Amino acid sequence: MTDENIVYIGRKPAMNYVLAVVTQFNSGSKEVVVKARGRAISRAVDVAEIVRNRFVPEAEIKDIKIATEPVEEEGRTANVSSIEIYLEKP
Amino acid sequence: MTDENIVYIGRKPAMNYVLAVVTQFNSGSKEVVVKARGRAISRAVDVAEIVRNRFVPEAEIKDIKIATEPVEEEGRTANVSSIEIYLEKP
Repeated sequence: MTDENIVYIGRKPAMNYVLAVVTQFNSGSKEVVVKARGRAISRAVDVAEIVRNRFVPEAEIKDIKIATEPVEEEGRTANVSSIEIYLEKP
Repeated sequence: MTDENIVYIGRKPAMNYVLAVVTQFNSGSKEVVVKARGRAISRAVDVAEIVRNRFVPEAEIKDIKIATEPVEEEGRTANVSSIEIYLEKP
């Protein structure tokens, strides 16, 4: 899978990222990965759910992975949780 | 599985819930489910990761489910995302 199938969730409203995921599917992608770290994790779940419930009902959640990533912050290293939600269109 | 194996994540610091999960495992539970809704979802992922990385290294993430739940709020119904993280000790 190439990088273009990944949608990184940031601080914008969820609908911005929903649009990005839907656009990926509409351009022919069979799989789109929604990725987020820290407090954006809740928004990533919102994005996946809105995509499935409102825009791409045939999309399935193939896998969900969680992990811990080290992040450099003001000279010290902190750990932040991350999530990857794999959405697939059969 | 009985209700006592579910840890609901709220607005307290993550370590409070980490302690609850660790206590469940130490009292003999083989599976503990970490549940959260809305903005607490990020904290649920933190809790699962801290439990695995620091306190119960043999615990595995057996499954992660996400869903959308209707919530009554000031007379109207809003949708909120939810997560269930299934932790299992082999």
